[in-house]
Amino acid sequence: MKDLSKDHEAELAYQFRQLNFMTHLGIELVAVKEGYCQTELKYFDELSQQNGFFHGGVVGTLADNVAAMAAVTMLPKGQSCLTAEYKINFLRPAVGDRLTAEARVIKPGRSLSIVEADVYAHKGEKRSHCATALVTLAVLQP
Amino acid sequence: MKDLSKDHEAELAYQFRQLNFMTHLGIELVAVKEGYCQTELKYFDELSQQNGFFHGGVVGTLADNVAAMAAVTMLPKGQSCLTAEYKINFLRPAVGDRLTAEARVIKPGRSLSIVEADVYAHKGEKRSHCATALVTLAVLQP
Amino acid sequence: MKDLSKDHEAELAYQFRQLNFMTHLGIELVAVKEGYCQTELKYFDELSQQNGFFHGGVVGTLADNVAAMAAVTMLPKGQSCLTAEYKINFLRPAVGDRLTAEARVIKPGRSLSIVEADVYAHKGEKRSHCATALVTLAVLQP
Amino acid sequence: MKDLSKDHEAELAYQFRQLNFMTHLGIELVAVKEGYCQTELKYFDELSQQNGFFHGGVVGTLADNVAAMAAVTMLPKGQSCLTAEYKINFLRPAVGDRLTAEARVIKPGRSLSIVEADVYAHKGEKRSHCATALVTLAVLQP
Repeated sequence: MKDLSKDHEAELAYQFRQLNFMTHLGIELVAVKEGYCQTELKYFDELSQQNGFFHGGVVGTLADNVAAMAAVTMLPKGQSCLTAEYKINFLRPAVGDRLTAEARVIKPGRSLSIVEADVYAHKGEKRSHCATALVTLAVLQP
Repeated sequence: MKDLSKDHEAELAYQFRQLNFMTHLGIELVAVKEGYCQTELKYFDELSQQNGFFHGGVVGTLADNVAAMAAVTMLPKGQSCLTAEYKINFLRPAVGDRLTAEARVIKPGRSLSIVEADVYAHKGEKRSHCATALVTLAVLQP
Repeated sequence: MKDLSKDHEAELAYQFRQLNFMTHLGIELVAVKEGYCQTELKYFDELSQQNGFFHGGVVGTLADNVAAMAAVTMLPKGQSCLTAEYKINFLRPAVGDRLTAEARVIKPGRSLSIVEADVYAHKGEKRSHCATALVTLAVLQP
Repeated sequence: MKDLSKDHEAELAYQFRQLNFMTHLGIELVAVKEGYCQTELKYFDELSQQNGFFHGGVVGTLADNVAAMAAVTMLPKGQSCLTAEYKINFLRPAVGDRLTAEARVIKPGRSLSIVEADVYAHKGEKRSHCATALVTLAVLQP
């Protein structure tokens, strides 16, 4: 994967901080490269469902957000995109002390970008693949 | 739609309150009937994305949760279900002072339930259909 | 639902006949209205899977095609659209002497149209809902 | 990827031949391994849409079928599975002299298997990625 320029990286980090909901959940931007993004989220009780696992809505939010960030890395400056739709499969319980999410652009496009996103649950050193998503983003004309 | 018994309703309301993430976001249970559920969420800044709309992750969480609640209304006492997967289409910006979500079970089943969920944004009296989802839930054997 | 003009109907029927794969399967156009389409397919052995049911690929093809036709009814003359993606849930075995498919446009758009499609299996007078799909179509600029 | 026993391979090839619709379209089984399947389909005019590309229904059928075959490779003898739902994104026009489809099981399960499937169009030596799908299969108890 190709690195982004420092300017481009800083711009994306700035955009990420504008997303209040990410701050509310505690989702942090870990890495951005051309066509790629990684994020992370530490567990706290307010993010859980009845069994103490991360709630599915948290996992879906991670997948949607990381996919959008990956899509934006491939757009010319000043262009942004919105999620048109996504589909997510929950593979295993999202249980652990933190989640990480990774996204890769499968097909960048002038009007639509298709991105694959995966969410992993971490318990100490152990990582389990807890969800996979396929996301379609609509590129907004400036 | 058939009403549930008062006991059944109370049990579902209790289950709903066990979902910490719903409380964290402020999602409230409005109505449950056989094969149906409605929920509501008032706007506050922490739920927004860069344009001041409700973030897509909030909309996805509402859809996933309301679908799961609708599926549970059709299960025998003591049985629960988990979202296996869903697909959501964002139709219009989720902008307004509150969101409501409604779900209807299309096909209840012994092992899988299929549910349709819709999310609406409200600005005063005006309602706009901002997302539609198709959700597959796996019924857990007791 | 609003009727289309006779001209518009004839144009859509012509477009439908250009789809060789529809002819190969025997799918027939039953009705088009503004934002709506219905099609039909009679059973023959070549369309089946191992149990003598209509193959899932046949059901998926019906859903995709009927959704595209419904989307086209809302476009200005000369514009067409392509399926960007769809998701389909199989609800019951597609068993019977014929299938019908119906689609309704949920959200027409300048660049994306969102359509809901349902497939029904018929055994004599009895109809069962065998699949439901959510389809995103990209509108092609002329 | 682990090879299957010759017996298991022969059984799967036999099952594949029971699918009349595959024969009708001309889809051929190329390879099966543990958690993997590859198929192929040569172009003929009856498989096309208005532009002479393979119809989306053909591409969807390939994805659904190859995913089901990949899932079956991981089941104990005598067990089979049915597609519960899938989502497919069309990435590029399916244009060429043949299509190939590949599927990999992401998560095998006792009741649900999750499979990723990709479809490629070939023009002589050139291959383009024309669709990607995420498929949920329900394992049938014997």
